[in-house]
Amino acid sequence: MSRFVNVAAAQLGPIARSETKKQVVDRLLAHLHQAKKMDVDVVVFPELALTTFFPRWFSEDISDFDCFYETQMPGPDTQPLFDAAAKLQIGFYLGYAELVIENGVKRRFNVSILVDKTGTIVGKYRKVHLPGHGQDEPWRAFQHLEKYYFEPGHEFGVWSAFGGVMGMALCNDRRWSETYRVMGLKGVEMVMLGYNTPVHNPPAPEHDDLSMFHNHLVMQAGAYQNGTWVVGVAKAGSEEGIEMIGGSAIIAPSGEIVAACSTKGDELAIARCDLDLCHSYKSTTFNFERHRRPEAYGLISSQRGAVVPWA
Amino acid sequence: MSRFVNVAAAQLGPIARSETKKQVVDRLLAHLHQAKKMDVDVVVFPELALTTFFPRWFSEDISDFDCFYETQMPGPDTQPLFDAAAKLQIGFYLGYAELVIENGVKRRFNVSILVDKTGTIVGKYRKVHLPGHGQDEPWRAFQHLEKYYFEPGHEFGVWSAFGGVMGMALCNDRRWSETYRVMGLKGVEMVMLGYNTPVHNPPAPEHDDLSMFHNHLVMQAGAYQNGTWVVGVAKAGSEEGIEMIGGSAIIAPSGEIVAACSTKGDELAIARCDLDLCHSYKSTTFNFERHRRPEAYGLISSQRGAVVPWA
Repeated sequence: MSRFVNVAAAQLGPIARSETKKQVVDRLLAHLHQAKKMDVDVVVFPELALTTFFPRWFSEDISDFDCFYETQMPGPDTQPLFDAAAKLQIGFYLGYAELVIENGVKRRFNVSILVDKTGTIVGKYRKVHLPGHGQDEPWRAFQHLEKYYFEPGHEFGVWSAFGGVMGMALCNDRRWSETYRVMGLKGVEMVMLGYNTPVHNPPAPEHDDLSMFHNHLVMQAGAYQNGTWVVGVAKAGSEEGIEMIGGSAIIAPSGEIVAACSTKGDELAIARCDLDLCHSYKSTTFNFERHRRPEAYGLISSQRGAVVPWA
Repeated sequence: MSRFVNVAAAQLGPIARSETKKQVVDRLLAHLHQAKKMDVDVVVFPELALTTFFPRWFSEDISDFDCFYETQMPGPDTQPLFDAAAKLQIGFYLGYAELVIENGVKRRFNVSILVDKTGTIVGKYRKVHLPGHGQDEPWRAFQHLEKYYFEPGHEFGVWSAFGGVMGMALCNDRRWSETYRVMGLKGVEMVMLGYNTPVHNPPAPEHDDLSMFHNHLVMQAGAYQNGTWVVGVAKAGSEEGIEMIGGSAIIAPSGEIVAACSTKGDELAIARCDLDLCHSYKSTTFNFERHRRPEAYGLISSQRGAVVPWA
């Protein structure tokens, strides 16, 4: 049996701070149109795909940056994406900054949505693993203030779409094995995730030359260990003077990279993904019901930090 | 700061069923002596390092195979290893089959021990993730009856030895991210693990050509995602007609393979491992206290099998 989903990893090159949302959406639309020509079913865009990666700057008044958030989805700027999806009959995953007002309080999240071929939002995911820091750290060459600009989400979900079990994650989520496992326990067959990853990590510059290796390592392991496809998509290149890794990749349930981008710009990598390949792993080596031992895993959900027993 | 531990991955070639334990122990002693010449502090041997991998055969009366188990450690056959450790002042990790009698009942485990430079057992680990099956499956070219020949252990531990936080695991444990994470939550700095992995997996022969890729992928991811050294050591080569993978490797907290065996026989791979390298990962990207989100991980310890929410 085969259940094919044709997928495009729609990498974006840098988005300048001066670029308008209309300009960015036009770039996304170009990806949608080209992908449609290649018979793609769903296009995966990066994290925060509508704007520059603004958490690299500190602003004392957080509201100064509200222009980078979406207050409705679709909104005036993004409606053309939904219109194109419906007209072309092509789905997409999109990362963006969300601003909602609840009980008169502004709340901000780093989110992704999954949109089906009718242009309907099927699911929304709020990023669980916010990296970086929550206060200005002027010693850094640039900031990574996701813990300042966003509240964390609390749940990994899966959604029924494109004939399979679809999951979503964002950027730093991909480094945490728990991300894939929680979705794996919900039967995920394809994890879509966008990222913005600077080459340089100010607290650990000694790892900078390994950033691409680490990027692929965690996604390949997550795919194999849960028998799922993983589609990781970068915003890449030199954005406002900060170098970001590319390396967008489509990874099979075997852990193998089967398609990848090779530039740091707007680029499509395409793969014809058979969701039934997942079964080959989920029913053998990673038959969870048969082989997992939750009674030995208690610490994972009961303890946050590392504690040496005798320390 | 540096805390160096010189480690040898002491791969073994096949052990014939006809080989006596004395013959095998002589091979282990040769490894210990050579490692000592190379200023090694601790030698990591494979899983079930004293015998052929007997779970490949079914015996209706499980006691027929009691000859493959150790009823005491050290015992008459293994005492020379402990004597050599004390004399040479070199430690070792050793995998073997354990048979204990409790309340008149025989209990069997797949275990590893860690022995320090005085020849004293510091810790014992009973394998948590037993792979394979629990009943004879004659359709297979060969059996993998670990669920028949062993009871599972229930806990991943760490031990204070060689100046650091040492962990142990065995074979199939390495494919499960939970293995590394539970030890990571106990501050592990070096995971030692032996394995016996046939190239051919009867339930999923379509993965056979990826067995070495998967072997390294899971250990490299486990190392990086927990900022720990991983020392994976094979029993390799053609054993009783069954091909087993080699690929023994010492993996840094960066996820990089820094030493590896390149044969399928008795071979040493050596690395000078700085336990303080772990800190670079444990205090930044994988600062668990800062970045983990246990409230989103509940399923991992509360649910064994995969359940699609709408199925």
